[in-house]
Amino acid sequence: MTPLQLSDWELHPHSCPGLLRHETVSHLEAGETLHHTEYLHIRTSKQYGLMNIQSPLEGVLSRSDVQDGLCFISTHHITTGIYVNDAESGLLEDLSKWLDQIAPYGLDYRHHQTGEDNCDAHIKSLITNHEITVPITQGRFDFGTWQQVFYAEFDGRREKRIVVKIIGLK
Amino acid sequence: MTPLQLSDWELHPHSCPGLLRHETVSHLEAGETLHHTEYLHIRTSKQYGLMNIQSPLEGVLSRSDVQDGLCFISTHHITTGIYVNDAESGLLEDLSKWLDQIAPYGLDYRHHQTGEDNCDAHIKSLITNHEITVPITQGRFDFGTWQQVFYAEFDGRREKRIVVKIIGLK
Amino acid sequence: MTPLQLSDWELHPHSCPGLLRHETVSHLEAGETLHHTEYLHIRTSKQYGLMNIQSPLEGVLSRSDVQDGLCFISTHHITTGIYVNDAESGLLEDLSKWLDQIAPYGLDYRHHQTGEDNCDAHIKSLITNHEITVPITQGRFDFGTWQQVFYAEFDGRREKRIVVKIIGLK
Repeated sequence: MTPLQLSDWELHPHSCPGLLRHETVSHLEAGETLHHTEYLHIRTSKQYGLMNIQSPLEGVLSRSDVQDGLCFISTHHITTGIYVNDAESGLLEDLSKWLDQIAPYGLDYRHHQTGEDNCDAHIKSLITNHEITVPITQGRFDFGTWQQVFYAEFDGRREKRIVVKIIGLK
Repeated sequence: MTPLQLSDWELHPHSCPGLLRHETVSHLEAGETLHHTEYLHIRTSKQYGLMNIQSPLEGVLSRSDVQDGLCFISTHHITTGIYVNDAESGLLEDLSKWLDQIAPYGLDYRHHQTGEDNCDAHIKSLITNHEITVPITQGRFDFGTWQQVFYAEFDGRREKRIVVKIIGLK
Repeated sequence: MTPLQLSDWELHPHSCPGLLRHETVSHLEAGETLHHTEYLHIRTSKQYGLMNIQSPLEGVLSRSDVQDGLCFISTHHITTGIYVNDAESGLLEDLSKWLDQIAPYGLDYRHHQTGEDNCDAHIKSLITNHEITVPITQGRFDFGTWQQVFYAEFDGRREKRIVVKIIGLK
Protein backbone atom coordinates (compact mmCIF):
# COMPACT_ATOMS: atom_id res chain seq x y z
CA MET A 1 0.00 0.00 0.00
CA THR A 2 1.26 3.44 -0.94
CA PRO A 3 -0.12 6.22 1.24
CA LEU A 4 -1.39 9.28 -0.55
CA GLN A 5 1.22 11.95 -1.13
CA LEU A 6 0.69 15.65 -0.50
CA SER A 7 0.82 16.16 -4.26
CA ASP A 8 -2.28 13.96 -4.59
CA TRP A 9 -4.35 16.63 -2.84
CA GLU A 10 -5.72 19.94 -4.13
CA LEU A 11 -5.64 22.20 -1.07
CA HIS A 12 -7.17 25.71 -1.17
CA PRO A 13 -7.41 27.34 2.24
CA HIS A 14 -8.94 30.55 0.89
CA SER A 15 -10.92 29.75 -2.22
CA CYS A 16 -12.58 27.05 -4.28
CA PRO A 17 -11.32 27.41 -7.86
CA GLY A 18 -13.25 24.30 -8.96
CA LEU A 19 -16.60 26.01 -8.32
CA LEU A 20 -18.43 26.04 -11.64
CA ARG A 21 -21.69 27.88 -11.01
CA HIS A 22 -24.62 28.29 -8.65
CA GLU A 23 -28.14 27.39 -9.63
CA THR A 24 -31.21 28.76 -7.89
CA VAL A 25 -33.69 25.94 -7.40
CA SER A 26 -36.49 27.70 -5.57
CA HIS A 27 -37.31 30.78 -3.55
CA LEU A 28 -40.55 30.43 -1.61
CA GLU A 29 -42.44 32.68 0.78
CA ALA A 30 -45.36 31.43 2.79
CA GLY A 31 -47.09 31.99 6.08
CA GLU A 32 -47.99 28.42 6.98
CA THR A 33 -45.30 26.18 8.39
CA LEU A 34 -45.96 22.48 8.86
CA HIS A 35 -44.31 20.43 11.65
CA HIS A 36 -44.63 16.65 11.41
CA THR A 37 -43.07 14.25 13.93
CA GLU A 38 -42.89 10.46 13.94
CA TYR A 39 -40.95 7.80 15.80
CA LEU A 40 -39.61 4.74 14.00
CA HIS A 41 -39.19 1.72 16.28
CA ILE A 42 -36.43 -0.75 15.40
CA ARG A 43 -35.20 -4.02 16.88
CA THR A 44 -32.19 -5.67 15.26
CA SER A 45 -31.53 -9.41 15.47
CA LYS A 46 -27.79 -8.99 16.13
CA GLN A 47 -25.82 -6.78 18.47
CA TYR A 48 -24.27 -4.84 15.57
CA GLY A 49 -25.86 -3.77 12.31
CA LEU A 50 -25.95 -1.31 9.43
CA MET A 51 -29.27 -1.05 7.65
CA ASN A 52 -30.96 1.08 5.06
CA ILE A 53 -33.89 3.16 6.38
CA GLN A 54 -34.51 5.20 3.25
CA SER A 55 -37.85 3.57 2.46
CA PRO A 56 -39.48 4.09 5.89
CA LEU A 57 -38.21 7.68 5.87
CA GLU A 58 -39.88 8.27 2.51
CA GLY A 59 -43.08 7.03 4.16
CA VAL A 60 -42.74 9.70 6.85
CA LEU A 61 -42.08 12.36 4.22
CA SER A 62 -45.19 11.31 2.30
CA ARG A 63 -47.38 11.46 5.42
CA SER A 64 -45.99 14.89 6.34
CA ASP A 65 -47.30 16.68 3.22
CA VAL A 66 -44.19 18.91 3.30
CA GLN A 67 -43.00 20.05 -0.14
CA ASP A 68 -40.01 22.17 0.90
CA GLY A 69 -38.09 22.12 4.17
CA LEU A 70 -35.85 20.01 6.36
CA CYS A 71 -36.17 16.44 7.61
CA PHE A 72 -34.34 15.95 10.89
CA ILE A 73 -33.51 12.34 11.82
CA SER A 74 -32.04 11.35 15.19
CA THR A 75 -31.83 8.23 17.30
CA HIS A 76 -32.93 8.29 20.94
CA HIS A 77 -29.87 6.25 21.94
CA ILE A 78 -26.19 6.63 22.77
CA THR A 79 -25.02 3.42 21.12
CA THR A 80 -26.49 3.95 17.64
CA GLY A 81 -25.84 6.15 14.64
CA ILE A 82 -27.42 7.65 11.55
CA TYR A 83 -25.38 8.25 8.41
CA VAL A 84 -25.79 8.75 4.67
CA ASN A 85 -23.78 6.68 2.20
CA ASP A 86 -23.90 4.04 -0.54
CA ALA A 87 -26.11 0.90 -0.38
CA GLU A 88 -23.34 -1.39 -1.67
CA SER A 89 -23.01 -4.57 0.40
CA GLY A 90 -19.20 -4.74 0.22
CA LEU A 91 -19.01 -1.19 1.54
CA LEU A 92 -21.17 -2.17 4.52
CA GLU A 93 -18.68 -4.92 5.32
CA ASP A 94 -15.79 -2.46 4.97
CA LEU A 95 -17.49 0.09 7.23
CA SER A 96 -18.31 -2.49 9.90
CA LYS A 97 -14.70 -3.71 9.88
CA TRP A 98 -13.30 -0.18 9.93
CA LEU A 99 -15.55 0.92 12.79
CA ASP A 100 -14.30 -1.98 14.90
CA GLN A 101 -10.68 -1.29 14.04
CA ILE A 102 -10.95 2.33 15.10
CA ALA A 103 -13.14 1.75 18.17
CA PRO A 104 -12.53 -1.90 19.12
CA TYR A 105 -14.92 -4.12 20.97
CA GLY A 106 -13.60 -5.90 24.04
CA LEU A 107 -10.92 -3.51 25.33
CA ASP A 108 -10.58 -2.83 29.04
CA TYR A 109 -12.58 0.41 29.08
CA ARG A 110 -13.26 2.35 32.31
CA HIS A 111 -16.97 2.43 31.39
CA HIS A 112 -17.06 -1.34 31.91
CA GLN A 113 -16.50 -0.89 35.65
CA THR A 114 -20.22 -0.01 35.77
CA GLY A 115 -21.01 -3.55 34.62
CA GLU A 116 -21.60 -2.51 30.99
CA ASP A 117 -19.54 -4.01 28.18
CA ASN A 118 -20.58 -1.65 25.39
CA CYS A 119 -18.06 1.21 25.53
CA ASP A 120 -17.04 0.52 21.94
CA ALA A 121 -20.68 1.14 20.96
CA HIS A 122 -20.59 4.62 22.54
CA ILE A 123 -17.42 5.50 20.61
CA LYS A 124 -18.74 4.03 17.35
CA SER A 125 -21.84 6.22 17.86
CA LEU A 126 -19.61 9.28 18.29
CA ILE A 127 -17.91 8.47 14.97
CA THR A 128 -21.07 7.92 12.92
CA ASN A 129 -23.07 10.61 14.75
CA HIS A 130 -26.59 9.96 15.99
CA GLU A 131 -28.37 12.45 13.76
CA ILE A 132 -28.54 13.95 10.30
CA THR A 133 -30.60 16.58 8.51
CA VAL A 134 -31.91 15.99 4.98
CA PRO A 135 -33.20 18.81 2.78
CA ILE A 136 -36.63 18.44 1.13
CA THR A 137 -37.20 20.07 -2.27
CA GLN A 138 -40.27 19.66 -4.49
CA GLY A 139 -41.69 17.02 -2.15
CA ARG A 140 -38.64 14.73 -2.25
CA PHE A 141 -35.44 14.25 -0.29
CA ASP A 142 -32.92 16.46 -2.09
CA PHE A 143 -30.33 13.68 -2.45
CA GLY A 144 -27.82 12.66 -5.07
CA THR A 145 -28.15 9.41 -7.02
CA TRP A 146 -26.36 7.17 -4.53
CA GLN A 147 -27.26 8.73 -1.19
CA GLN A 148 -29.20 6.46 1.16
CA VAL A 149 -29.87 6.90 4.89
CA PHE A 150 -28.53 4.15 7.17
CA TYR A 151 -29.26 3.20 10.76
CA ALA A 152 -26.16 1.94 12.59
CA GLU A 153 -26.78 -0.29 15.61
CA PHE A 154 -23.92 -1.07 18.00
CA ASP A 155 -25.86 -2.53 20.96
CA GLY A 156 -28.97 -4.10 19.51
CA ARG A 157 -31.38 -6.97 20.09
CA ARG A 158 -33.77 -4.64 21.92
CA GLU A 159 -36.26 -2.02 20.77
CA LYS A 160 -34.80 1.35 19.81
CA ARG A 161 -36.40 4.55 18.53
CA ILE A 162 -35.60 7.04 15.78
CA VAL A 163 -37.28 10.44 15.91
CA VAL A 164 -38.09 12.00 12.53
CA LYS A 165 -39.18 15.63 12.54
CA ILE A 166 -40.08 17.31 9.26
CA ILE A 167 -40.51 21.08 9.17
CA GLY A 168 -41.49 22.99 6.07
CA LEU A 169 -44.06 24.33 3.66
CA LYS A 170 -46.96 22.52 1.98
CA MET B 1 -9.06 -9.03 22.62
CA THR B 2 -11.05 -10.69 19.82
CA PRO B 3 -12.08 -8.31 17.06
CA LEU B 4 -15.68 -8.55 15.94
CA GLN B 5 -16.29 -11.01 13.14
CA LEU B 6 -18.38 -10.30 10.08
CA SER B 7 -20.95 -12.77 11.43
CA ASP B 8 -21.42 -10.49 14.46
CA TRP B 9 -23.00 -7.84 12.21
CA GLU B 10 -26.47 -7.65 10.68
CA LEU B 11 -25.91 -5.86 7.36
CA HIS B 12 -28.86 -4.83 5.19
CA PRO B 13 -27.85 -2.56 2.33
CA HIS B 14 -31.39 -2.28 0.95
CA SER B 15 -33.86 -2.66 3.79
CA CYS B 16 -34.34 -2.57 7.53
CA PRO B 17 -36.12 -5.79 8.52
CA GLY B 18 -35.92 -4.89 12.22
CA LEU B 19 -38.27 -1.95 11.73
CA LEU B 20 -41.25 -2.60 13.99
CA ARG B 21 -43.65 0.28 13.39
CA HIS B 22 -43.95 4.05 12.95
CA GLU B 23 -45.78 6.22 15.42
CA THR B 24 -47.11 9.66 14.56
CA VAL B 25 -46.37 11.99 17.47
CA SER B 26 -47.74 15.28 16.19
CA HIS B 27 -48.76 17.08 13.04
CA LEU B 28 -49.01 20.84 13.54
CA GLU B 29 -49.85 23.74 11.28
CA ALA B 30 -49.39 27.31 12.37
CA GLY B 31 -48.62 30.72 10.98
CA GLU B 32 -46.35 32.06 13.68
CA THR B 33 -42.77 30.88 13.83
CA LEU B 34 -40.60 31.83 16.78
CA HIS B 35 -36.82 32.33 16.48
CA HIS B 36 -34.85 32.52 19.72
CA THR B 37 -31.06 32.95 19.85
CA GLU B 38 -28.70 32.92 22.83
CA TYR B 39 -24.97 32.65 23.35
CA LEU B 40 -23.55 30.57 26.19
CA HIS B 41 -20.13 31.74 27.37
CA ILE B 42 -17.77 29.12 28.79
CA ARG B 43 -14.26 29.17 30.25
CA THR B 44 -12.72 25.86 31.26
CA SER B 45 -10.01 25.58 33.92
CA LYS B 46 -7.95 23.06 31.94
CA GLN B 47 -6.83 22.91 28.32
CA TYR B 48 -8.98 19.84 27.63
CA GLY B 49 -12.44 19.00 28.90
CA LEU B 50 -15.72 17.21 28.35
CA MET B 51 -18.67 18.70 30.19
CA ASN B 52 -22.41 18.33 30.38
CA ILE B 53 -24.35 21.39 29.12
CA GLN B 54 -27.82 19.86 29.21
CA SER B 55 -29.03 22.02 32.09
CA PRO B 56 -28.08 25.43 30.58
CA LEU B 57 -29.60 24.32 27.26
CA GLU B 58 -32.86 23.51 29.04
CA GLY B 59 -32.73 27.06 30.37
CA VAL B 60 -32.51 28.41 26.82
CA LEU B 61 -35.40 26.19 25.72
CA SER B 62 -37.53 27.43 28.59
CA ARG B 63 -36.83 31.08 27.74
CA SER B 64 -37.61 30.49 24.05
CA ASP B 65 -41.28 29.53 24.62
CA VAL B 66 -40.98 27.07 21.69
CA GLN B 67 -43.16 23.95 22.02
CA ASP B 68 -42.26 22.21 18.75
CA GLY B 69 -39.24 22.75 16.52
CA LEU B 70 -35.47 22.43 16.35
CA CYS B 71 -32.73 23.54 18.72
CA PHE B 72 -29.48 24.17 16.87
CA ILE B 73 -26.31 24.23 19.01
CA SER B 74 -22.90 25.20 17.63
CA THR B 75 -19.63 26.43 19.05
CA HIS B 76 -18.00 29.56 17.63
CA HIS B 77 -14.59 27.85 17.70
CA ILE B 78 -12.42 25.49 15.67
CA THR B 79 -10.90 23.64 18.62
CA THR B 80 -14.11 22.60 20.40
CA GLY B 81 -16.96 20.16 19.85
CA ILE B 82 -20.56 19.42 20.72
CA TYR B 83 -21.79 15.86 21.02
CA VAL B 84 -24.60 13.83 22.58
CA ASN B 85 -23.85 10.78 24.72
CA ASP B 86 -24.01 9.25 28.18
CA ALA B 87 -23.17 11.15 31.41
CA GLU B 88 -21.15 8.28 32.87
CA SER B 89 -17.80 9.39 34.31
CA GLY B 90 -15.87 6.30 33.16
CA LEU B 91 -17.08 6.86 29.62
CA LEU B 92 -15.78 10.45 29.73
CA GLU B 93 -12.36 9.06 30.65
CA ASP B 94 -12.57 6.52 27.82
CA LEU B 95 -13.58 9.19 25.30
CA SER B 96 -10.81 11.57 26.36
CA LYS B 97 -8.24 8.78 26.06
CA TRP B 98 -9.62 7.60 22.72
CA LEU B 99 -9.66 11.11 21.24
CA ASP B 100 -5.99 11.55 22.11
CA GLN B 101 -5.07 8.16 20.68
CA ILE B 102 -6.73 8.91 17.38
CA ALA B 103 -5.61 12.57 17.12
CA PRO B 104 -2.56 12.78 19.35
CA TYR B 105 -1.29 15.89 21.10
CA GLY B 106 2.32 16.80 20.57
CA LEU B 107 3.05 15.45 17.09
CA ASP B 108 5.12 17.47 14.64
CA TYR B 109 2.17 18.98 12.74
CA ARG B 110 2.64 21.45 9.88
CA HIS B 111 0.12 23.78 11.56
CA HIS B 112 2.66 24.29 14.36
CA GLN B 113 4.97 26.17 11.99
CA THR B 114 2.61 29.13 12.57
CA GLY B 115 3.63 29.14 16.23
CA GLU B 116 0.48 27.29 17.34
CA ASP B 117 0.70 23.98 19.18
CA ASN B 118 -2.97 22.97 19.00
CA CYS B 119 -3.30 21.02 15.75
CA ASP B 120 -4.57 17.99 17.68
CA ALA B 121 -7.40 20.22 18.95
CA HIS B 122 -8.48 21.03 15.38
CA ILE B 123 -8.56 17.33 14.48
CA LYS B 124 -10.36 16.37 17.70
CA SER B 125 -12.95 19.05 16.81
CA LEU B 126 -13.38 17.48 13.35
CA ILE B 127 -14.06 14.11 15.01
CA THR B 128 -16.61 15.31 17.57
CA ASN B 129 -18.14 17.94 15.26
CA HIS B 130 -18.77 21.47 16.43
CA GLU B 131 -22.56 21.41 16.16
CA ILE B 132 -25.69 19.34 16.69
CA THR B 133 -29.41 19.76 16.18
CA VAL B 134 -31.89 18.61 18.82
CA PRO B 135 -35.62 18.15 18.11
CA ILE B 136 -38.15 19.82 20.42
CA THR B 137 -41.51 18.10 20.96
CA GLN B 138 -44.20 19.12 23.44
CA GLY B 139 -41.93 21.77 24.94
CA ARG B 140 -39.04 19.39 25.72
CA PHE B 141 -35.90 18.12 24.02
CA ASP B 142 -37.05 14.96 22.22
CA PHE B 143 -34.28 12.80 23.71
CA GLY B 144 -33.98 9.22 24.89
CA THR B 145 -33.40 8.37 28.55
CA TRP B 146 -29.62 8.59 28.51
CA GLN B 147 -28.95 11.34 25.97
CA GLN B 148 -27.14 14.39 27.32
CA VAL B 149 -25.45 17.22 25.40
CA PHE B 150 -21.73 17.66 26.01
CA TYR B 151 -19.32 20.50 25.29
CA ALA B 152 -15.85 19.25 24.31
CA GLU B 153 -12.97 21.68 24.86
CA PHE B 154 -9.58 20.96 23.32
CA ASP B 155 -7.88 24.36 23.74
CA GLY B 156 -9.40 25.92 26.81
CA ARG B 157 -8.55 28.26 29.68
CA ARG B 158 -10.08 31.19 27.79
CA GLU B 159 -13.61 32.38 27.13
CA LYS B 160 -15.48 30.52 24.40
CA ARG B 161 -19.00 30.89 23.00
CA ILE B 162 -21.77 28.48 22.08
CA VAL B 163 -24.60 29.77 19.88
CA VAL B 164 -28.02 28.26 20.58
CA LYS B 165 -30.76 29.02 18.04
CA ILE B 166 -34.24 27.62 18.62
CA ILE B 167 -36.78 27.79 15.79
CA GLY B 168 -40.34 26.56 16.11
CA LEU B 169 -43.94 27.04 17.12
CA LYS B 170 -45.36 28.32 20.40
CA MET C 1 5.72 12.49 22.14
CA THR C 2 3.95 12.34 25.49
CA PRO C 3 0.29 11.36 25.30
CA LEU C 4 -2.10 13.46 27.31
CA GLN C 5 -2.66 12.27 30.85
CA LEU C 6 -6.04 11.97 32.52
CA SER C 7 -5.04 14.89 34.75
CA ASP C 8 -4.79 17.09 31.65
CA TRP C 9 -8.57 16.84 31.18
CA GLU C 10 -11.41 18.59 33.03
CA LEU C 11 -14.23 16.02 33.00
CA HIS C 12 -17.70 16.92 34.29
CA PRO C 13 -20.32 14.31 33.51
CA HIS C 14 -23.12 16.21 35.22
CA SER C 15 -22.41 19.92 35.01
CA CYS C 16 -20.42 22.63 33.29
CA PRO C 17 -18.78 24.72 36.03
CA GLY C 18 -16.97 26.85 33.44
CA LEU C 19 -20.24 28.29 32.15
CA LEU C 20 -19.99 32.05 32.65
CA ARG C 21 -23.33 33.48 31.48
CA HIS C 22 -25.99 33.33 28.79
CA GLU C 23 -26.70 36.24 26.52
CA THR C 24 -29.98 36.64 24.64
CA VAL C 25 -29.19 37.82 21.13
CA SER C 26 -32.65 37.99 19.60
CA HIS C 27 -36.20 36.77 20.05
CA LEU C 28 -38.28 37.17 16.88
CA GLU C 29 -41.86 36.34 15.97
CA ALA C 30 -43.10 36.52 12.43
CA GLY C 31 -45.58 34.88 10.13
CA GLU C 32 -43.58 34.83 6.91
CA THR C 33 -40.95 32.16 6.50
CA LEU C 34 -38.59 32.28 3.55
CA HIS C 35 -37.13 29.14 1.95
CA HIS C 36 -34.25 29.62 -0.49
CA THR C 37 -32.49 26.72 -2.24
CA GLU C 38 -29.43 26.73 -4.49
CA TYR C 39 -27.02 24.15 -5.86
CA LEU C 40 -23.31 24.86 -6.08
CA HIS C 41 -21.54 22.87 -8.80
CA ILE C 42 -17.89 21.99 -8.22
CA ARG C 43 -15.23 20.16 -10.21
CA THR C 44 -11.82 19.70 -8.61
CA SER C 45 -8.66 19.23 -10.64
CA LYS C 46 -7.29 16.46 -8.40
CA GLN C 47 -8.85 13.34 -6.91
CA TYR C 48 -8.55 14.69 -3.37
CA GLY C 49 -9.04 18.21 -2.10
CA LEU C 50 -9.96 20.50 0.77
CA MET C 51 -11.24 23.90 -0.27
CA ASN C 52 -12.84 26.93 1.29
CA ILE C 53 -16.43 27.57 0.12
CA GLN C 54 -17.22 30.39 2.55
CA SER C 55 -17.38 33.06 -0.14
CA PRO C 56 -19.85 31.29 -2.48
CA LEU C 57 -22.00 30.44 0.56
CA GLU C 58 -22.10 34.13 1.50
CA GLY C 59 -23.35 34.75 -2.03
CA VAL C 60 -26.22 32.34 -1.46
CA LEU C 61 -27.05 33.97 1.87
CA SER C 62 -27.12 37.38 0.24
CA ARG C 63 -29.46 36.21 -2.52
CA SER C 64 -31.78 34.53 0.03
CA ASP C 65 -32.73 37.78 1.84
CA VAL C 66 -32.91 35.79 5.11
CA GLN C 67 -31.97 37.78 8.22
CA ASP C 68 -32.45 35.10 10.88
CA GLY C 69 -32.60 31.33 10.44
CA LEU C 70 -30.58 28.29 9.44
CA CYS C 71 -28.40 27.59 6.43
CA PHE C 72 -28.25 23.88 5.66
CA ILE C 73 -25.34 22.74 3.47
CA SER C 74 -25.02 19.19 2.13
CA THR C 75 -23.22 17.47 -0.70
CA HIS C 76 -25.14 15.21 -3.10
CA HIS C 77 -22.33 12.63 -2.97
CA ILE C 78 -21.05 9.76 -0.86
CA THR C 79 -17.36 10.46 -1.36
CA THR C 80 -17.27 14.11 -0.26
CA GLY C 81 -17.58 16.06 2.97
CA ILE C 82 -18.46 19.45 4.42
CA TYR C 83 -16.77 20.70 7.57
CA VAL C 84 -16.03 23.93 9.43
CA ASN C 85 -12.51 24.77 10.57
CA ASP C 86 -9.54 27.09 10.16
CA ALA C 87 -8.27 28.38 6.77
CA GLU C 88 -4.62 27.79 7.66
CA SER C 89 -2.69 26.03 4.88
CA GLY C 90 -0.52 23.92 7.21
CA LEU C 91 -3.67 22.64 8.93
CA LEU C 92 -5.09 21.58 5.55
CA GLU C 93 -1.94 19.52 4.98
CA ASP C 94 -2.25 18.00 8.45
CA LEU C 95 -5.92 17.13 7.91
CA SER C 96 -5.28 15.56 4.50
CA LYS C 97 -2.47 13.45 5.96
CA TRP C 98 -4.53 12.47 9.01
CA LEU C 99 -7.57 11.49 6.94
CA ASP C 100 -5.42 9.15 4.86
CA GLN C 101 -3.78 7.64 7.93
CA ILE C 102 -7.13 6.86 9.52
CA ALA C 103 -8.90 5.72 6.32
CA PRO C 104 -6.09 4.71 3.97
CA TYR C 105 -6.23 4.73 0.21
CA GLY C 106 -5.26 1.53 -1.57
CA LEU C 107 -6.21 -1.16 0.94
CA ASP C 108 -7.87 -4.34 -0.22
CA TYR C 109 -11.46 -3.26 0.54
CA ARG C 110 -14.45 -5.50 -0.22
CA HIS C 111 -16.11 -2.55 -2.00
CA HIS C 112 -13.39 -2.79 -4.66
CA GLN C 113 -14.78 -6.14 -5.84
CA THR C 114 -17.41 -4.01 -7.64
CA GLY C 115 -14.66 -2.52 -9.79
CA GLU C 116 -14.49 0.69 -7.73
CA ASP C 117 -11.25 1.76 -6.05
CA ASN C 118 -12.64 4.53 -3.85
CA CYS C 119 -13.63 2.82 -0.60
CA ASP C 120 -11.29 5.10 1.33
CA ALA C 121 -13.30 8.04 -0.05
CA HIS C 122 -16.53 6.64 1.42
CA ILE C 123 -14.90 6.24 4.85
CA LYS C 124 -13.27 9.68 4.70
CA SER C 125 -16.74 11.07 3.91
CA LEU C 126 -18.15 9.31 6.98
CA ILE C 127 -15.46 10.98 9.12
CA THR C 128 -15.91 14.52 7.82
CA ASN C 129 -19.69 14.18 7.39
CA HIS C 130 -21.42 15.31 4.24
CA GLU C 131 -23.50 18.11 5.76
CA ILE C 132 -23.52 20.95 8.26
CA THR C 133 -25.99 23.53 9.50
CA VAL C 134 -24.94 27.14 10.02
CA PRO C 135 -27.02 29.61 12.05
CA ILE C 136 -27.88 32.98 10.51
CA THR C 137 -28.24 36.00 12.82
CA GLN C 138 -28.71 39.62 11.76
CA GLY C 139 -28.21 38.70 8.11
CA ARG C 140 -24.84 37.00 8.60
CA PHE C 141 -23.50 33.51 9.33
CA ASP C 142 -23.31 33.39 13.12
CA PHE C 143 -19.68 32.21 13.16
CA GLY C 144 -16.67 32.82 15.33
CA THR C 145 -13.60 34.66 14.04
CA TRP C 146 -11.81 31.67 12.53
CA GLN C 147 -14.68 29.50 11.34
CA GLN C 148 -14.75 28.84 7.60
CA VAL C 149 -16.76 26.25 5.66
CA PHE C 150 -14.73 23.71 3.67
CA TYR C 151 -15.65 21.31 0.90
CA ALA C 152 -13.74 18.01 1.13
CA GLU C 153 -13.39 16.02 -2.08
CA PHE C 154 -12.17 12.43 -1.97
CA ASP C 155 -13.08 11.26 -5.50
CA GLY C 156 -12.91 14.34 -7.70
CA ARG C 157 -12.11 15.37 -11.24
CA ARG C 158 -15.82 15.31 -12.16
CA GLU C 159 -18.75 17.62 -11.50
CA LYS C 160 -20.26 17.42 -8.04
CA ARG C 161 -23.14 19.32 -6.42
CA ILE C 162 -23.68 20.97 -3.03
CA VAL C 163 -27.24 21.79 -2.01
CA VAL C 164 -27.67 24.94 0.09
CA LYS C 165 -31.08 25.49 1.68
CA ILE C 166 -31.68 28.59 3.76
CA ILE C 167 -34.82 28.81 5.89
CA GLY C 168 -35.71 31.82 7.98
CA LEU C 169 -37.21 35.27 8.40
CA LYS C 170 -36.68 38.38 6.31
